[in-house]
Amino acid sequence: MSRKDPAVNDWVRPEIRALSPYRVADARGLIKLDAMENPYTWPEELRQAWLERLRGAEVNRYPDPGAPMLKRRLRENMSIPAAAEIILGNGSDELIQMAAMTLAGPERVLLSVEPGFVMYRMIAAFTGMRYQAVALNPKDFSLDLSALLGAIERYRPALVFLAYPNNPTGNLFPESALLEVIDAAPGLVVVDEAYAPFTDASFMPRAGEFGNLLVMRTLSKMGLAGLRLGLLAGPPAWTSEIEKTRLPYNINTLTQLSAEFALSHPEIFQEQARLLRQSREALFQRLAGLSGVTAFPSEANFILLRLAEGRAKPVHASLLSAGVLVKILHGSHPLLRDCLRVTLGTPEENQAFLDALTAALG
Amino acid sequence: MSRKDPAVNDWVRPEIRALSPYRVADARGLIKLDAMENPYTWPEELRQAWLERLRGAEVNRYPDPGAPMLKRRLRENMSIPAAAEIILGNGSDELIQMAAMTLAGPERVLLSVEPGFVMYRMIAAFTGMRYQAVALNPKDFSLDLSALLGAIERYRPALVFLAYPNNPTGNLFPESALLEVIDAAPGLVVVDEAYAPFTDASFMPRAGEFGNLLVMRTLSKMGLAGLRLGLLAGPPAWTSEIEKTRLPYNINTLTQLSAEFALSHPEIFQEQARLLRQSREALFQRLAGLSGVTAFPSEANFILLRLAEGRAKPVHASLLSAGVLVKILHGSHPLLRDCLRVTLGTPEENQAFLDALTAALG
Repeated sequence: MSRKDPAVNDWVRPEIRALSPYRVADARGLIKLDAMENPYTWPEELRQAWLERLRGAEVNRYPDPGAPMLKRRLRENMSIPAAAEIILGNGSDELIQMAAMTLAGPERVLLSVEPGFVMYRMIAAFTGMRYQAVALNPKDFSLDLSALLGAIERYRPALVFLAYPNNPTGNLFPESALLEVIDAAPGLVVVDEAYAPFTDASFMPRAGEFGNLLVMRTLSKMGLAGLRLGLLAGPPAWTSEIEKTRLPYNINTLTQLSAEFALSHPEIFQEQARLLRQSREALFQRLAGLSGVTAFPSEANFILLRLAEGRAKPVHASLLSAGVLVKILHGSHPLLRDCLRVTLGTPEENQAFLDALTAALG
Repeated sequence: MSRKDPAVNDWVRPEIRALSPYRVADARGLIKLDAMENPYTWPEELRQAWLERLRGAEVNRYPDPGAPMLKRRLRENMSIPAAAEIILGNGSDELIQMAAMTLAGPERVLLSVEPGFVMYRMIAAFTGMRYQAVALNPKDFSLDLSALLGAIERYRPALVFLAYPNNPTGNLFPESALLEVIDAAPGLVVVDEAYAPFTDASFMPRAGEFGNLLVMRTLSKMGLAGLRLGLLAGPPAWTSEIEKTRLPYNINTLTQLSAEFALSHPEIFQEQARLLRQSREALFQRLAGLSGVTAFPSEANFILLRLAEGRAKPVHASLLSAGVLVKILHGSHPLLRDCLRVTLGTPEENQAFLDALTAALG
């Protein structure tokens, strides 16, 4: 059968036909600073205790669809208010998709800001929603609040996604601005707190307080990206509807057991986040001292950099040859011209990156 | 906030509002014969080797989105033809959803037969497709081929799902009938082979041969329900489009490692399936000998039973008090009036079920 088979052309939705597959760089053998992963692993005795916990896993049985023990741990760990209900997802991606499926429709708008997390746009396409983006201020990626409020007035979005802090820019929008958005939005507002471990700001204490606010979290950035676990917290009137679109066994048995286990040792992950925040300040200072580099202040576990015009591609390639993988953002959005994004690694990895960058800048 | 909050009513799609949440029975302390799980666990040395394999898992890193090693194992294990490409899902549920999202639209029809797997209808609702079902023959749940071909002609479905063998009835539709459906369908046909370990019939050898056929498999019924892993196999022209709707990190690291490990010991699972097929024949004979019970022949790891009128509920309750959980189907579909479904357990569990059933029938 050829790629031109008429049935495929006839039946696949044009929005899907138009998409390019999501690409992930091959990181084998490289210092991996491209994906906002926590570089720290577990102490040996913790790993051993985890394996003992998995020993009793009943992999022949379906996972518990309600995951009550895991939910209890998540509530404690993230101080989720009693007024908020929670929904678990196979990573934040699946939660974005569940919220979109609950509200989708050909005339329904999903609104976000750009540069932003690419999955908002992708999932709008998957679920047949109309995607609208409001540009951030080009100079410093701050929120253009009047443009955003204007877009809310104009498009009446069913769903607004705002990352807090924002990815891939790293900055934190003002709390007061988000409150204005929550107030103005006719539909649901999801504040995506993927990078919560690396900032003091959070809407989680207020989850359940606003009739149209959901707070999204993930365990990925704190150090459990391999497990795929995210959650949405908010008022039961919304969560009970979105929960209906959850595939009942979406959180597998090993993820449930492993996340429960990890969350019963919060001090390990808190200490790792503390080290990363510390090294963020150190790396930022060093980058700020390099000529030909603009580093943007970050409240997340990565730093966005702008290089001199036309330098992002050659510097990215040069870092790769030196064995360091960072994310090239140049080409992904007009406002990210000449930009790279580096995830915080261990102090040694950050130093290797700095050395390679300094050499590449020549 | 009350359940009547106007924003929720305004924004949640009516198809989602109308859904009831998927319910799963609490099985604690019971002999669990309700969910088509493999009752056998792993030999101790296999479990130990598995834990050693997980010891090296990098849970701080995102899973490999391409999962090439796992895909290779699946190809070998399921004899997937070279002409077919494969897509991995977080269980079959997610694959049904991906196929539906790829083809969805307000006028697009997802067609199946009933009684059938309830997730086809649920996911049609999630993705905004129009669901149509063709009734099986009431007497023996055989396919009403002329009705099905008539519905294909009338509704021009974008997607047809047929389970082979069928759930919850256990019977296998004729291969020739499925070939007629594949030939007549204007869109995509998915043959859902969830119960493949318990039958000799399969379309997998022909995956890639037909321009509009995808074959779906899962590891759940062979004994890995806790891992959540399914796949779609078929012509690249289709899989490349559906693959675009896959959330890139949908198969977590522990599932990848564990499934790879399990599939490198196929003899364990083949032997377990052989035992289950053996006990299916034994249980069927015993059930056929009970008055007040009609057992339907099964090619799957469960048996559908019909009791005398009005007896399904009291017998289900009586089995529960005796510590045996089976699935009550009475009330779920008109053709399943007075029906229960029992999953094959170990010989001891099957005996406990038979004893409790005999007592309940009085």
